[in-house]
Amino acid sequence: MEKGDIIRWEFEAWVVEDGNEILFDTTKEDLAKEHGIHDPNVKYGPMVSVVGAGRLIKGIDEELLKAEVDKDYEVTIPPEKGYGERDPKLVKIHSYRELARQKIEPEVGKEVVINNKRGRIVTVTPGRVVIDFNHPLAGKTLKYKFKIVEKVEGDVDKVRAIIEMDYGKEVEKFNIEVKDDDIIIELPDVCKYDSNWAVAKYAIVGDIRDYVANKNVKFVEVYPKKEEKKEEETKENTDENTENAEENKEEGKEENAEEEKTES
Amino acid sequence: MEKGDIIRWEFEAWVVEDGNEILFDTTKEDLAKEHGIHDPNVKYGPMVSVVGAGRLIKGIDEELLKAEVDKDYEVTIPPEKGYGERDPKLVKIHSYRELARQKIEPEVGKEVVINNKRGRIVTVTPGRVVIDFNHPLAGKTLKYKFKIVEKVEGDVDKVRAIIEMDYGKEVEKFNIEVKDDDIIIELPDVCKYDSNWAVAKYAIVGDIRDYVANKNVKFVEVYPKKEEKKEEETKENTDENTENAEENKEEGKEENAEEEKTES
Repeated sequence: MEKGDIIRWEFEAWVVEDGNEILFDTTKEDLAKEHGIHDPNVKYGPMVSVVGAGRLIKGIDEELLKAEVDKDYEVTIPPEKGYGERDPKLVKIHSYRELARQKIEPEVGKEVVINNKRGRIVTVTPGRVVIDFNHPLAGKTLKYKFKIVEKVEGDVDKVRAIIEMDYGKEVEKFNIEVKDDDIIIELPDVCKYDSNWAVAKYAIVGDIRDYVANKNVKFVEVYPKKEEKKEEETKENTDENTENAEENKEEGKEENAEEEKTES
Repeated sequence: MEKGDIIRWEFEAWVVEDGNEILFDTTKEDLAKEHGIHDPNVKYGPMVSVVGAGRLIKGIDEELLKAEVDKDYEVTIPPEKGYGERDPKLVKIHSYRELARQKIEPEVGKEVVINNKRGRIVTVTPGRVVIDFNHPLAGKTLKYKFKIVEKVEGDVDKVRAIIEMDYGKEVEKFNIEVKDDDIIIELPDVCKYDSNWAVAKYAIVGDIRDYVANKNVKFVEVYPKKEEKKEEETKENTDENTENAEENKEEGKEENAEEEKTES
């Protein structure tokens, strides 16, 4: 692969500890279930990533750059190319009173967030609680098994892959067209109501610029015209009545709004 | 005019009381100032309305239907075609304690909102407060002076007028195109960040269907491509540096997000 390539890949991520290997992440649903780390909110299956973009741990980014499509790889990644070495200075002592003020009941193993930093309680003794703010995988040697399933080619497919990576919902329902200087993306209905979309769209624009092409990105929100009902003659009347009733209701609402305006 | 026509019109709205005439609304900025009802938040000048759509008081809707462009009209409108007759049942007695519970200090003339109804305090006696929930213009005879400045023609101009009526901001910056079965509306940047737009767009779609044409309405949000800087050779370097710095910052953020995902 080359820097900036968009790929779909599968992986198993293991942590190597005292000769044991423990699975901590994977794109394979069955394997996740088998190892008790299955998350019903996660969409399993090949994942979209950008190679060499510094979004993955360094060890994986480097290995992906050397890898080819459809080959199985297995690599061991030392801590410095994974989640970093453990920093003893990130192990801190807090008083019971401090935790009480933040409404945290101290228990060994509990994950806590203090001053926006995520940590894990390691020991609880009378009066003091030791919290480790290192990344849980810091200092760990990792083993990744992976395969690049696809190198995404062509502007339309690349845009769709970026939408999958940055948004993830109803990816097949986006209508994508590349025309001269424009990349035109017709949005599915879900985007009209989803606050995640409002955030995702900026990431998508940025990634299209960086990894597809420097073109105008146009998001199109469609409100389709009303279908004229001709086929079902019998149903037509009732449908029309419902429609009128709705229209009257709407006008009523707007009348009030208008009146307040005129009155001001 | 005909029902459904879109117009731009000017008006002066007076309330007739005890032989006096008091201006309560107008599209004319100077006149509003002169009569002490100027509101700096209001956009003065000819206003867009839909004729006969039941959004204006009945008396005005009827007069507009009879009116022609560029002629001056003056009409007297009785209460039943204005804001309705006064309903004595809407004058209600409230106890001091009731108002205290809603943190309202009773004062004659004060506007209050109780159970979502707007009213005005008319008398305050020990122990009881009389509130009139009639519309302030109920029971009043009105006098309107108006002129239709323009009957809006053509689909593009009608769409623009509807945007002016339902949204009102940066109307000239909307790029409107009618093509076969589509009405394509390219949005100005303000719509990307304005929560009013999220509400206005539904009103606009409805009004386009009712008063322009039953076509697909497509809102297009544009993120223009980055300009390549060739003209200003001397500035180029500094600009590029700023750009890179920004990109690195962005990648840093996303790296964190990605790591949390991989970790789950």
